[in-house]
Amino acid sequence: MKKLASGILLDIRARSPYYAKDWTDAWNYRVVPATALIFFANVLPGIAFSLDLIETTQQYGVAEVLLASFMAAFIFSVFGAQPLTIAGVTGPITVFNKTIFRIIQGQPDAPNYLHFVGWVYLWAAIIHWVTAILNWCNFLKYVTLFSCDTFGFYVSWVYLQYGVQVLTRQLDSSTLPGALVSIILAILMLVVCFLFQSLSQKTLFHRHVRRFLADYGMPISLVAISGMAYWGRFNSTNPETLPISGAFQPANGRAWLVPFWELEGKWVGIALPFGIVLWILFFFDHNVSSLMAQGSEFPLRKPPGFHYDFFLLGITTFLAGLLGIPAPNGLIPQAPIHTTSLVVMGRPSKKDDAESQSSSSKEKISNYTPAHIEQPIAVVEQRVSNLAQGSLCLVLLSGPFLHVLSLIPRGVLAGLFWFMGVDALQGNGITQKILYFLRDKKSTSKDEPLRRVRKSRIILFLAIQMIAFGATFAITQTIAAIGFPVIIMALIPIRTLVIPRLPFTAEELAVLDGPTASPFTMESVGGSF
Amino acid sequence: MKKLASGILLDIRARSPYYAKDWTDAWNYRVVPATALIFFANVLPGIAFSLDLIETTQQYGVAEVLLASFMAAFIFSVFGAQPLTIAGVTGPITVFNKTIFRIIQGQPDAPNYLHFVGWVYLWAAIIHWVTAILNWCNFLKYVTLFSCDTFGFYVSWVYLQYGVQVLTRQLDSSTLPGALVSIILAILMLVVCFLFQSLSQKTLFHRHVRRFLADYGMPISLVAISGMAYWGRFNSTNPETLPISGAFQPANGRAWLVPFWELEGKWVGIALPFGIVLWILFFFDHNVSSLMAQGSEFPLRKPPGFHYDFFLLGITTFLAGLLGIPAPNGLIPQAPIHTTSLVVMGRPSKKDDAESQSSSSKEKISNYTPAHIEQPIAVVEQRVSNLAQGSLCLVLLSGPFLHVLSLIPRGVLAGLFWFMGVDALQGNGITQKILYFLRDKKSTSKDEPLRRVRKSRIILFLAIQMIAFGATFAITQTIAAIGFPVIIMALIPIRTLVIPRLPFTAEELAVLDGPTASPFTMESVGGSF
Repeated sequence: MKKLASGILLDIRARSPYYAKDWTDAWNYRVVPATALIFFANVLPGIAFSLDLIETTQQYGVAEVLLASFMAAFIFSVFGAQPLTIAGVTGPITVFNKTIFRIIQGQPDAPNYLHFVGWVYLWAAIIHWVTAILNWCNFLKYVTLFSCDTFGFYVSWVYLQYGVQVLTRQLDSSTLPGALVSIILAILMLVVCFLFQSLSQKTLFHRHVRRFLADYGMPISLVAISGMAYWGRFNSTNPETLPISGAFQPANGRAWLVPFWELEGKWVGIALPFGIVLWILFFFDHNVSSLMAQGSEFPLRKPPGFHYDFFLLGITTFLAGLLGIPAPNGLIPQAPIHTTSLVVMGRPSKKDDAESQSSSSKEKISNYTPAHIEQPIAVVEQRVSNLAQGSLCLVLLSGPFLHVLSLIPRGVLAGLFWFMGVDALQGNGITQKILYFLRDKKSTSKDEPLRRVRKSRIILFLAIQMIAFGATFAITQTIAAIGFPVIIMALIPIRTLVIPRLPFTAEELAVLDGPTASPFTMESVGGSF
Repeated sequence: MKKLASGILLDIRARSPYYAKDWTDAWNYRVVPATALIFFANVLPGIAFSLDLIETTQQYGVAEVLLASFMAAFIFSVFGAQPLTIAGVTGPITVFNKTIFRIIQGQPDAPNYLHFVGWVYLWAAIIHWVTAILNWCNFLKYVTLFSCDTFGFYVSWVYLQYGVQVLTRQLDSSTLPGALVSIILAILMLVVCFLFQSLSQKTLFHRHVRRFLADYGMPISLVAISGMAYWGRFNSTNPETLPISGAFQPANGRAWLVPFWELEGKWVGIALPFGIVLWILFFFDHNVSSLMAQGSEFPLRKPPGFHYDFFLLGITTFLAGLLGIPAPNGLIPQAPIHTTSLVVMGRPSKKDDAESQSSSSKEKISNYTPAHIEQPIAVVEQRVSNLAQGSLCLVLLSGPFLHVLSLIPRGVLAGLFWFMGVDALQGNGITQKILYFLRDKKSTSKDEPLRRVRKSRIILFLAIQMIAFGATFAITQTIAAIGFPVIIMALIPIRTLVIPRLPFTAEELAVLDGPTASPFTMESVGGSF
């Protein structure tokens, strides 16, 4: 058992020598495209979530979501130990807040929703602090792709469902032509986003153009398809757009500060189990996104700090409750995308070689990697891009920009949900394993690791994941939706305690499952991979 | 100068010994899937064209188009020398008939439309017969990919425009919600057809499943998306569907026989230039589709017969005028698809080797093509699949099937037009050359023949094609649309007389252009490739 707060102190001690350099290192061109890219990648889904939240809870609108993004960016970039981890409003927290609303709403003596959520967040914050002090982030070593893939698969399907719900709600609330135009816009948004994505992956165009399409395909599609809604015939149907409040104003004209201490004692107690569930969710979701943002594929030179940052996440969660905004946490896939966009390519210098390789093997290495082929040699590790993208969110809250946001049709955001869902499904480990089965065996590479696993064992592994996914997704459809993080969390002991007793060989498990992040990063949380 | 009708007589003499065998050879499993595939590939676009024709001319409906398909199939399969060439109603003849309607309609003393077309078809038929007797099909040797690609590029864009027009007409004629549902169905049809196509080209599924998806993706999509139109919310908007007449009845309740001899003398004369234009169109379109259906990639053993079949095409054109149906001719890409679907794969037997190779090189060849790899060894050359697919068209004219056809929403057919257009564009030589320019040079194969051509010369060649396409497409938008085959036909002397005087090297021209069909097939029409 380590000493109390030893993890936090070690994190601070390791990172603080780099603090000044974290700001001066930002004087690099890569910071500019990285800021633009991650701003759109963060804010567009965030706006979509705000639409879903305002339609269901009538409390969290676009202002609340943008403020949450700014607050998280400000705290993690100025005070955090891992400024590369982008935080914001995610799909899971949207499910969580919506479910609380549904539960509260049904009660005869229903409390004020924001007061209740304020207490839920406070309880969660306290447990975050306790977790950080007790060094529990070391348990992250048990989080493997098995649970991450199942969680990602679940979130993808939630996105797909959100897209459908945005449209079906309009079939009820809007005129029929307006709802039909929304359906057209949603389908077009999905198709055009995929066109940009597939163009960026083909051999057409110079690689700089392809990089541009990959980076900006989503905002370009959003602007183009939103514009179509204002074409005469479509415009006349008056399709519903994103609802907004006044500039820098919360929805419903309330004050920004939520006096959650006014909540009745009985409800304070009821808020505790909700807080525990939120803590489970964030422990999983935030830490996994931090792990992925600092994966082994990135040549990082500055140390991580999981314990200290999880303590900070308690603070942002508490502040979110106080301000009546959805609690932000680490974003997947935006956090790793952010790191990727900051990678510097180049020819490895002798100094780099000497640092990363034993000097005796230098000659041999340069045989394998000819000097003219560029490879990742560094990441612009700094705090400015995160702070800048968050500040841009604040700018969007000003009158003129808020007006522009209010022009975005809801149908386009439904299409964005679909794109995010299908896109996440494509890269998911569960999908990959299913595709392996569907693939013509003649077209499967001889080196495919799954070939070394018995078919029955792949099916068994997939079956466990699909049952967990099915249970999580099914529970989300009920009033018990709040319990979904518990099922996801339960996968970790299932992986550690149950699966090794099933008839898998060690080699098969090594193929079927793997660590979420690099050995280097896992080591910092006590992992032994 | 060859003797009159010598081509026809040679064709008959060459093919007649195979006639009985053409029927008995059909006792082969491949004939079944080939019939089903080509029936759908012929009838679905045909139905789409009938929608376009009935909406504009009010004369040619689905019954007329299906009867034209049956008549062509009956005549070419029972009497033809090239029963593999599938004939039916095409996009170009649709443009032709629509334009005649537009021209006639504007006249103060407008004649009966079907009477006038009857005379146009009769004139064209007479010129067909003269052409066949004078052996003019030998001029086909001058038809190269240069003009075929330009023609194909033009037809693709006409399809795309048709799709848009089917929808915009509904914006005017239908209720707004009904038109919007049609737009949704059109987009979904396009997307789902492409999904099936891309699934059939990926490495997913067993190759038999992929073949099935490639063969039946279009009919499956049509049924699935048509079904969506009957979902409650969509159905309530009452989207417009395919208009039909009574079983085996022509549109407007007229008699099947058109008394075109009642046409005023003045209009008989006016019909002549139209007949010449139709002859130009069919000379080009029908013969190229016959050439492609008998390309070098197919191991055909029975002889072609261009002169005799062009004579028969005169007969079908005359009959079409007499019955008041659109004149059928050879279908691209359906004709070559038909031959492909009849290919028999297998391991080359010793006898085959001996036939096709000199016996001394036998050993060497079998080193290159291991016995376990299947290759095309034969084509089921017969008359039954063509006759059967045409007869199925006749079955569709019966009451119950006609009712099913009447359930197809017009929006789905608009999507089918888009799919046909985009699909044809993908394989077109002009598109391929444009893509070569857009492609990242690092991803272009070292063996790409275009690398041997100066960039400026590729641009010059493309520019000529694009100007011809632009002129043809522009003229189609005007009342002079009838002239489009003249421009296409003019490309043949341009290729033969003008282009060789431009600064191309012989090698460059060999890369940029090529013969439409195999040397073997071209030889039968006097080609020297």
